[in-house]
Amino acid sequence: MSPSPPTSSTLTRNESLTLFTITSACLTVLANALREDAEIPLIVSLALSGFAFAASYALIRWLGPTFMRAGFRGADLAKATRREIPECMGAVCAAVYLFVMILFVPFVFYRDVVAATSGGGNRDVVLPQAQQLDVERGVFLHRFPHSKLASYLSAMVSLHTVASLGLADDLFDIRWRHKFFIPAFAAIPLLVVYAVDFGVTSVVVPRLLQPYLGPLIDLGGLYYVYMAAFAIFAPNSINILAGINGIEVAQSIVIASLLALNDTLYLLPPDTLIPRLAGVSSKPHPHPATDSHLFSLSFLIPFLGVSFALLCHNAYPARVFVGDTYCYFAGTVFVVVGILGHFSKTLMLLLVPQIFNFVYSAPQLFGLVPCPRHRLPRFNARTGLLEPSVTVWAEDKQPKGLVKWGLQVLGRLGLLRVVTERGEDGRERIVETSNFTILNLWLVWRGPMKESRLTLEMTVVQAAVGLAGLVVRYRLALLVFSQDNI
Amino acid sequence: MSPSPPTSSTLTRNESLTLFTITSACLTVLANALREDAEIPLIVSLALSGFAFAASYALIRWLGPTFMRAGFRGADLAKATRREIPECMGAVCAAVYLFVMILFVPFVFYRDVVAATSGGGNRDVVLPQAQQLDVERGVFLHRFPHSKLASYLSAMVSLHTVASLGLADDLFDIRWRHKFFIPAFAAIPLLVVYAVDFGVTSVVVPRLLQPYLGPLIDLGGLYYVYMAAFAIFAPNSINILAGINGIEVAQSIVIASLLALNDTLYLLPPDTLIPRLAGVSSKPHPHPATDSHLFSLSFLIPFLGVSFALLCHNAYPARVFVGDTYCYFAGTVFVVVGILGHFSKTLMLLLVPQIFNFVYSAPQLFGLVPCPRHRLPRFNARTGLLEPSVTVWAEDKQPKGLVKWGLQVLGRLGLLRVVTERGEDGRERIVETSNFTILNLWLVWRGPMKESRLTLEMTVVQAAVGLAGLVVRYRLALLVFSQDNI
Repeated sequence: MSPSPPTSSTLTRNESLTLFTITSACLTVLANALREDAEIPLIVSLALSGFAFAASYALIRWLGPTFMRAGFRGADLAKATRREIPECMGAVCAAVYLFVMILFVPFVFYRDVVAATSGGGNRDVVLPQAQQLDVERGVFLHRFPHSKLASYLSAMVSLHTVASLGLADDLFDIRWRHKFFIPAFAAIPLLVVYAVDFGVTSVVVPRLLQPYLGPLIDLGGLYYVYMAAFAIFAPNSINILAGINGIEVAQSIVIASLLALNDTLYLLPPDTLIPRLAGVSSKPHPHPATDSHLFSLSFLIPFLGVSFALLCHNAYPARVFVGDTYCYFAGTVFVVVGILGHFSKTLMLLLVPQIFNFVYSAPQLFGLVPCPRHRLPRFNARTGLLEPSVTVWAEDKQPKGLVKWGLQVLGRLGLLRVVTERGEDGRERIVETSNFTILNLWLVWRGPMKESRLTLEMTVVQAAVGLAGLVVRYRLALLVFSQDNI
Repeated sequence: MSPSPPTSSTLTRNESLTLFTITSACLTVLANALREDAEIPLIVSLALSGFAFAASYALIRWLGPTFMRAGFRGADLAKATRREIPECMGAVCAAVYLFVMILFVPFVFYRDVVAATSGGGNRDVVLPQAQQLDVERGVFLHRFPHSKLASYLSAMVSLHTVASLGLADDLFDIRWRHKFFIPAFAAIPLLVVYAVDFGVTSVVVPRLLQPYLGPLIDLGGLYYVYMAAFAIFAPNSINILAGINGIEVAQSIVIASLLALNDTLYLLPPDTLIPRLAGVSSKPHPHPATDSHLFSLSFLIPFLGVSFALLCHNAYPARVFVGDTYCYFAGTVFVVVGILGHFSKTLMLLLVPQIFNFVYSAPQLFGLVPCPRHRLPRFNARTGLLEPSVTVWAEDKQPKGLVKWGLQVLGRLGLLRVVTERGEDGRERIVETSNFTILNLWLVWRGPMKESRLTLEMTVVQAAVGLAGLVVRYRLALLVFSQDNI
């Protein structure tokens, strides 16, 4: 699609045609799925995802002026002309996503047949219908049993909560120490329903420790503390790896794609790839984790749809900003699939760049080193390139003791740019240090570069680290655990 | 509680003490409920409702300045000084309500015991636990079976949707013909899950027609059309009965209270009132509609909690406005309990004033009669009283044909104030007509009055009409239907 002029809020003829084609194709697939008896949820999910892409793409364009009028606007600091563009467009993606996910329900959940109702409309007799039907027929990518519906809906409530709180954050400019807990609130519905609905708090014990602890250990309440910490960390870690055009969306797309790849590994082992794609499985009873990974794919595929639409508008040169809403929302999608699918450890491997960025940022986040309002790379209007942004150390506010020592060590390790000068008294003092973000560090290592190039390189790093993480996970798991899930 | 000065955003010492006492008492009850084995959901619901009241009361006060800074503010047109006050405070109520309703889940839903898990954390064997336990023990106000959880969560998703869209409406000022469908979007999660989870589309046939149609008739798709229409109508009808201090909240409180009364009639018939309150029932098998009405109460009691907190701030003289968010939210709470509890017809009886107002407003809503931007009663600064607001008919824009005839008939029936004058040509022409709202009509009938008095009288009308509706419903039901639910 050819980019339209940044000020326009209408679709070009080409864009309209493309979106219309996508929408028509997807609606046709959906209409067919409704008619067929044994439709495959994944195909429905793909069709809904295409529809979500088209809807997000058009709505983001159309709603730009409305958002700006309502005060959702910001200036792009890394451009020569600091033009104001619409902010918080992740809210549109979230709305489309949530809408599409509700439309998905009747396609993938079995219906309980109510044989008779008494007064007041309560069901008296429930015949669990044909839950084994698809499996018997050999349809591998089967529908979900009705008991999964509560988990699905709890995920929806969590995602609704995080979208609303993210919007409130963008609207009211909530203080940093408050907004850190937004994802925690959003995780409550998920965890509460997890406790009522599922309640598994056991984890598999590594082989080395099994003689002492047994094969499974029940973490009880600690497991919920772990899940809550995970739910707080993931969205926040995505939110702080931000600041240049496209980076928030690109990293989310990479993580979602790798999670989808991981799910696909469970669903489609190479030896049975073709028959399974064709809907015929040689094994009558699929792997027990199949449901979890099919479930995870159902959440990830439409997320990829809305994210690609957002990327089209947020990629360099950005015509909209995504807002905290998008970062929190993306993080919570990952938390949802990680917790409900029981593979939060795998997810952690995909978040290694985010974890590094968080740990690396800690000195500034926790106030050991002064933290300016914006830490994004500095735009050099003369060269048109991004350079590491810096914290300036005034002569009377020099770092002391451990902080000074830490800065010097990081500088020597190449993990920080430290500029020093010799004062009039002959003593060396620190003039400035680069800000503690992975983006600045990358610029320290690789030198100044264009904004689009920085986004691309970080995306490649994210993908490479994630792929390596998955390889390590599958190679090592069999060594550490006596049996693996795959 | 003594009202603090309208500009203050802090709680007075008295308010703080009262709210602290309420919160402590409620948290104590909740802590006890967690420890006891056979806690009664209604008591938990009441405690959460008290907590919700305290939280909403304090948050509405505290967040006033924040909302005004973010642009949520409006002038009170019916006051001598048109001071700006915070708008859209219903969003705070909605947020507290949704939070509390999630906390409610672990108290009222049975937990499925997972006997064993395989790799990937899927449950293989599920032992349905003790679902009949409370019934056997004779605890009447029992917990809900796990199968109700999906309905509960679908209601949460619907309420989240309506709160978000209501906020978007208050934020972006969505056009009237668009916002009319906000409740329709919000109803989708409810109806989709209803279809998958429950799917009953049969209604009881009146006795007269039973020889021809049988005792039950399956409406199929039509039943969903009916529910969707109902879901669109109820919130919108509350939203258009608005415009004077306290009216939106007061009518919602009356409707919620009458619905709760109706539920209580099912749960506590007079003959067994005491034993049932004590948790011991003489009947081992409670009425089949018990679940639906207990379910309904669980949604209504916390709603009353947040609504009373809002009323404290919105009652004359209003220190905050409620926003469309509150009206849509309140209407959707009623839709949720009406649809999931299968008593939408009863709810219709309680909405008679709203239905009258909607039908009466139709000429202006659908453009037969010019509709000014604001139709709320006019404040007469000289007398300090409200008078009916009017539509002025210019000499060159006189009503014609059927419209003119209609206005004259309504005027003669006392359903409209029509002011005429004889022009220079000797022909009578219409100078002005009162606007088509129930509030203006009431002022036409009863004469100018203070704003607080008008709210009070409309609230009494709402309560009286609703009570009469309930009486009619129980008296007539046995005549029309061969068996009733009670």
